[in-house]
Amino acid sequence: MLPTDRFVAETVLWVRYAETDAMRIVHHSQYLVYFEEARSEYMRQRGENYARFEEDGFNLAVTEAHVRYARPAVYGQQIRVRCWIAEVQSRGMRFGYQLTHADTGDVHATGETRHICVKRDGGVALIPPRWRDWASASTAPE
Amino acid sequence: MLPTDRFVAETVLWVRYAETDAMRIVHHSQYLVYFEEARSEYMRQRGENYARFEEDGFNLAVTEAHVRYARPAVYGQQIRVRCWIAEVQSRGMRFGYQLTHADTGDVHATGETRHICVKRDGGVALIPPRWRDWASASTAPE
Amino acid sequence: MLPTDRFVAETVLWVRYAETDAMRIVHHSQYLVYFEEARSEYMRQRGENYARFEEDGFNLAVTEAHVRYARPAVYGQQIRVRCWIAEVQSRGMRFGYQLTHADTGDVHATGETRHICVKRDGGVALIPPRWRDWASASTAPE
Amino acid sequence: MLPTDRFVAETVLWVRYAETDAMRIVHHSQYLVYFEEARSEYMRQRGENYARFEEDGFNLAVTEAHVRYARPAVYGQQIRVRCWIAEVQSRGMRFGYQLTHADTGDVHATGETRHICVKRDGGVALIPPRWRDWASASTAPE
Repeated sequence: MLPTDRFVAETVLWVRYAETDAMRIVHHSQYLVYFEEARSEYMRQRGENYARFEEDGFNLAVTEAHVRYARPAVYGQQIRVRCWIAEVQSRGMRFGYQLTHADTGDVHATGETRHICVKRDGGVALIPPRWRDWASASTAPE
Repeated sequence: MLPTDRFVAETVLWVRYAETDAMRIVHHSQYLVYFEEARSEYMRQRGENYARFEEDGFNLAVTEAHVRYARPAVYGQQIRVRCWIAEVQSRGMRFGYQLTHADTGDVHATGETRHICVKRDGGVALIPPRWRDWASASTAPE
Repeated sequence: MLPTDRFVAETVLWVRYAETDAMRIVHHSQYLVYFEEARSEYMRQRGENYARFEEDGFNLAVTEAHVRYARPAVYGQQIRVRCWIAEVQSRGMRFGYQLTHADTGDVHATGETRHICVKRDGGVALIPPRWRDWASASTAPE
Repeated sequence: MLPTDRFVAETVLWVRYAETDAMRIVHHSQYLVYFEEARSEYMRQRGENYARFEEDGFNLAVTEAHVRYARPAVYGQQIRVRCWIAEVQSRGMRFGYQLTHADTGDVHATGETRHICVKRDGGVALIPPRWRDWASASTAPE
């Protein structure tokens, strides 16, 4: 399930009460927020920062998101969020995710998101070389 | 794109400022909330209410969500949200969605969500006959 | 409770499932989102649009928020949101709010928010005359 | 500003992109979520867990919230969240909060929330003795 040939960022988050819904479980839309925070963490763990990418005048707009929900997460537990770069292309990239219960290891969800590189004016752009190199160099732990 | 052989619920929503992010567009996780509200509206437009489904002791847990983002939505506009039942099974169902700009008709996103019927204790259950009949009878406008 | 000497905008919203939490009620932070949407609606009902205020190069930053929660709102109900301008100053303004159950009239919450006018660079500014006049003319229904 | 005679819980959080809005700052409603997470953290740092309070059959419903916003927080930074018990009563309690920039120490916001103890059926209740003792014993670091 987890890729073994590339860097996988891992972070542990407490479930926040506001993230739950009336089913007493984490609301399914929240997983996209966990995925996004996992991407932020991925960048930090590899020495970068998404804020810097934006300062360079670019955004990684989400073009597709896919989540498979296995077992609900609840308030009072921690979630282990894993994230990796699944694919790098000239104008975009794809991230993969796995969310598990931090104590039991049970899988809460898996998913992918696709992104394209856009300039501040919204136009699609080539990923700047520095960032493309950085992304492509993710096939081994740093 | 839109199915022509079944009921399609349609509702128009103003984008809320809180739904935007620092890219100045609606945050991508918000689309799952629009989808969910579209399901609620679908039920109301066909004479039902999801709250009643819960009172009957059941939930429609989301098992999969897929969103394809076309063009960003922004604060100050209205979104037209369309929703239909794509498939009914004994223990679950699938909904389809289309989100467009209420004025221009441009597509913001399309997507699907899969659900299974669960009892309050979390166990998977057959969709109660009354609800299954209701869902299956959606192939023509009411 | 409600002011009788000025325009009060009123709008009715369905509670969204995503707005609830594990107590099976609307999460308390959501009321600030209802307040904000009430401000947007207030502007629209008086012929304006907050997006236009931003296009003019200004923001109404929130400097203070106060919410008193009376009775919880739940999924399956509609909320009536009322909003008015409580005070206009040279550099800021104050809004008042009342949220009630759309069917029973029971009060869910009341509150106020204070705002200052800021320019895009973040500096405090005088409210532009056109907007100040508009805000001050709110003491009678339009 | 910060109380010196009682336990103050402190935690550091990264701002999540989803927490920002089109002003490119953290949305003001998000501060109530930070406050809430600060309460959860407060309980964990003093050896308790709010989930256990709920298992005991009680909730701490929010009856009032007050936030004073000083300086906006942005994506790319960390926030230091401080939380303490301001007051304990037989049926309720009050928490105080301070949010600062984790690097510069600049204050983003301060605030308070009031809570009453309710049973699962919604009725107001005395805070159970074990919890009341725990709350009252907060006047010194543990």
